[in-house]
Amino acid sequence: MNRIEFWFEFASTYSYPTAMRIEAVAEKSGVQIVWRPFLLGPVFRKQGWDDSPFNLYPAKGAYMWRDLQRVCDRQGLPFNKPSAFPRNGLLAARTVCRFADEAWVPEFVRQIYRANFELDLDISSRDIVSQCLVSLGQNPEEILEKAEDAESKEKLKQQTERAEQLGIFGAPSFTVDGELFWGNDRLEAALEWAGGVQ
Amino acid sequence: MNRIEFWFEFASTYSYPTAMRIEAVAEKSGVQIVWRPFLLGPVFRKQGWDDSPFNLYPAKGAYMWRDLQRVCDRQGLPFNKPSAFPRNGLLAARTVCRFADEAWVPEFVRQIYRANFELDLDISSRDIVSQCLVSLGQNPEEILEKAEDAESKEKLKQQTERAEQLGIFGAPSFTVDGELFWGNDRLEAALEWAGGVQ
Repeated sequence: MNRIEFWFEFASTYSYPTAMRIEAVAEKSGVQIVWRPFLLGPVFRKQGWDDSPFNLYPAKGAYMWRDLQRVCDRQGLPFNKPSAFPRNGLLAARTVCRFADEAWVPEFVRQIYRANFELDLDISSRDIVSQCLVSLGQNPEEILEKAEDAESKEKLKQQTERAEQLGIFGAPSFTVDGELFWGNDRLEAALEWAGGVQ
Repeated sequence: MNRIEFWFEFASTYSYPTAMRIEAVAEKSGVQIVWRPFLLGPVFRKQGWDDSPFNLYPAKGAYMWRDLQRVCDRQGLPFNKPSAFPRNGLLAARTVCRFADEAWVPEFVRQIYRANFELDLDISSRDIVSQCLVSLGQNPEEILEKAEDAESKEKLKQQTERAEQLGIFGAPSFTVDGELFWGNDRLEAALEWAGGVQ
């Protein structure tokens, strides 16, 4: 089956509408998704940024929030500007990295994005991540103990390094073999590149 | 008639596919275009950049050239990566600013973009700008004398300041009353905002 790798960061604003729609859109195209969380922090630091470019460049940031509202409106997706931005999605990213093949992962990803961009909850909090796991019928203690161990830390570190090697500089991104697509707007082009049904 | 303002910079890569398609797409939507050239240089300098961000951030730049090739391919548009980037479109921008209401302006805009992104010609050269005017049956001496006078310089300066006041930080951009849209991908959304037929 054809597949795309979906590279996302839980703090990333435009990754929210993508995360909420990608499974349905990919299924319709007959393309499989590989969920690839990574961290934008190290990627941005190499570009000389110690914060989100949306905070460092206020005109771009102001536009992004307005545009994101319009994008969510068009998608029929609830959106509330988070009271803190960017939020640290480290624990959630390690969780997805460690349990990548589990059936509950796609819904967990959506729950974390909803927590951040719909419900304005602090996704860096262990409690919030636990609540998302509980809502999926999972055992948070068992899962988070593993998500916080050395193996999970190393997995996410390596995945972030692989993102950089693939030329990824922002999120959401999609790769199809070596071909890179960046932005929620490029999901359809990436699926087409993967041989998806149009 | 409903209208959108189209803000472009002759050096801007993604403004090329937009400039080549906007007239046809807008006409189909029943929306009028106001052609608004401006300069990205002063806008970028205020963000601390003395060059195109595509040169300052190599990963982003490498992606952009690849993505632009794909975008042009999908649009059936010839594209050749310019051997110099960004090229100075000052004279061409002053020309459009000064003669904004002339019927030859849209085709002149397309000729300059083709010179830069299809034919790899130096659009900062007076000769190249002249040739574009000649190909439209215009008198280049007469036009360029006016394009280089104080009035034209002031017009373009004011238009660039107005762009910044509208929150514009990149090109292509579109404004519909106060509403801002950024990027070739947002043309359809801007036309819809303007009440265009879908």
